Amino acid sequence: MTLAPELAVTRWFNTSEPLTLAALRGRPVLLHAFQMLCPGCVAHGTPQTQRAFEIFRQSDLQVIGLHTVFEHHAAMTPVSLEAFIHEYRLTFPIAVDEPGEGTPIPVTMQRYGMQGTPTSILIGRDGKVAHHLFGQQSDMAIGALIAAELATPPA
Amino acid sequence: MTLAPELAVTRWFNTSEPLTLAALRGRPVLLHAFQMLCPGCVAHGTPQTQRAFEIFRQSDLQVIGLHTVFEHHAAMTPVSLEAFIHEYRLTFPIAVDEPGEGTPIPVTMQRYGMQGTPTSILIGRDGKVAHHLFGQQSDMAIGALIAAELATPPA
Amino acid sequence: MTLAPELAVTRWFNTSEPLTLAALRGRPVLLHAFQMLCPGCVAHGTPQTQRAFEIFRQSDLQVIGLHTVFEHHAAMTPVSLEAFIHEYRLTFPIAVDEPGEGTPIPVTMQRYGMQGTPTSILIGRDGKVAHHLFGQQSDMAIGALIAAELATPPA
Amino acid sequence: MTLAPELAVTRWFNTSEPLTLAALRGRPVLLHAFQMLCPGCVAHGTPQTQRAFEIFRQSDLQVIGLHTVFEHHAAMTPVSLEAFIHEYRLTFPIAVDEPGEGTPIPVTMQRYGMQGTPTSILIGRDGKVAHHLFGQQSDMAIGALIAAELATPPA
Repeated sequence: MTLAPELAVTRWFNTSEPLTLAALRGRPVLLHAFQMLCPGCVAHGTPQTQRAFEIFRQSDLQVIGLHTVFEHHAAMTPVSLEAFIHEYRLTFPIAVDEPGEGTPIPVTMQRYGMQGTPTSILIGRDGKVAHHLFGQQSDMAIGALIAAELATPPA
Repeated sequence: MTLAPELAVTRWFNTSEPLTLAALRGRPVLLHAFQMLCPGCVAHGTPQTQRAFEIFRQSDLQVIGLHTVFEHHAAMTPVSLEAFIHEYRLTFPIAVDEPGEGTPIPVTMQRYGMQGTPTSILIGRDGKVAHHLFGQQSDMAIGALIAAELATPPA
Repeated sequence: MTLAPELAVTRWFNTSEPLTLAALRGRPVLLHAFQMLCPGCVAHGTPQTQRAFEIFRQSDLQVIGLHTVFEHHAAMTPVSLEAFIHEYRLTFPIAVDEPGEGTPIPVTMQRYGMQGTPTSILIGRDGKVAHHLFGQQSDMAIGALIAAELATPPA
Repeated sequence: MTLAPELAVTRWFNTSEPLTLAALRGRPVLLHAFQMLCPGCVAHGTPQTQRAFEIFRQSDLQVIGLHTVFEHHAAMTPVSLEAFIHEYRLTFPIAVDEPGEGTPIPVTMQRYGMQGTPTSILIGRDGKVAHHLFGQQSDMAIGALIAAELATPPA
């Protein structure tokens, strides 16, 4: 299995410097793709990701939000996202996925072959995609998957 | 007590023609003020108003949503609101409150002296404000207040 | 339409003296039938009835709970019900429905032709059944039905 | 650290033969203490334990419920518990804690020094108590703790 594709990002929130999967190699990464006007993301996905950020704060897990706008592009610009992040008190790093050329699907979303939002992708210490989960996930299952990756020693 | 102030609206959604309180005189009106990026509105206020719209569909209650943007103005433009209404499947008439001049508070919000969002205002058949409720309300209390207005004969 | 059947009760909780529908004539009555080991009753029915008791406290609505045990009789005796009422902090009057003879269905439950639990029955000021609702009800609809009965003048 | 105390059980549900911690040595055990009339147990604790039972079904985790009645003893007898287990569709093995002598606290509850219900105790493959958690726990944290124990090799 090949390495997880690198992120293509036009703007970051909640981090002083850009993050790259290359630089994170050796640490598990929870990559959560969402849209700020996707009801399932707002009600379940981003709050769950915030909980993961808080519960695993003492570990070396890196949580990354990815705003993968593939519909209503004019409605979900970075200025709207910034207000969303503020109002919903999201504190984990969030990247704006790079718009696609000639397609409504942004670049990172394409690279991963995501089917929609919310999507949670768990990348292992070895830099490979361990789990690619589309739709609503249970907190207990997500917690277990993350802990299992944390417990896996680097290759 | 004087009549409830008229609405100042720049755009309507979910209605083929503009609504005015003047034209609605004689019918109870539930006026629900919200912002699309106000978490309490999204989680409680607008779903509750949608439920009222559905439960009292057989009555002569008029439900009206009012998008009273008083913060993050660039983030909550009508184009974003339109996508919000679509994604959250809101089907009751929704008005965009007219922007204030020299103040972030929009015009209708000022006229009613609203303290923030969500705010639910119940107007009686006589055209006067019967209840002005700021913050989260219980479904049972809202249902009771509406039914009581419906049962009140015109003056 | 005939009058709502009288209650057949072997024991009362949360009231210093027994209640009868005959004595309550002229006031609306919310009669809520439940079983303490019915999950839908515990999660929705009895908390909803408690909310009605509190929201309409200033009105002349009478709220009555009715423990209609029709299964697991040995598991839901009055001693167990008493602990349930205490632990779940129910404060409205609750009656134990009189056991049926030669049938697992208790007497009041039979008289009303209830199909199961939870069942909410709303009796009008005229002593007649205005609404007989089986299963989970929405808070807003219940609130509206109660308010409508409260607004109905005695015949 | 010494081994987790053995269970003292008068009756089992949902298992064809009694379970002992001694026989389970080498496997992680989630021991969940509850009371059937404890509202926090019914709303959160036992449903969470049921989810753990289902999510970790493929692992060698052993989930055990423990009915630790320390109040309202006459209200929570095994016949009532049996109906509770049936109605709430709990399918993991459940033990009735042995009544204490001269104390309302049952024997296993005493041995573990539990403060009340719900209590979740996670025992490692080495037979020692890894986590003793009193009160409501988050699903994500519980899932992570269990997965971490599952990933810990036998001593």
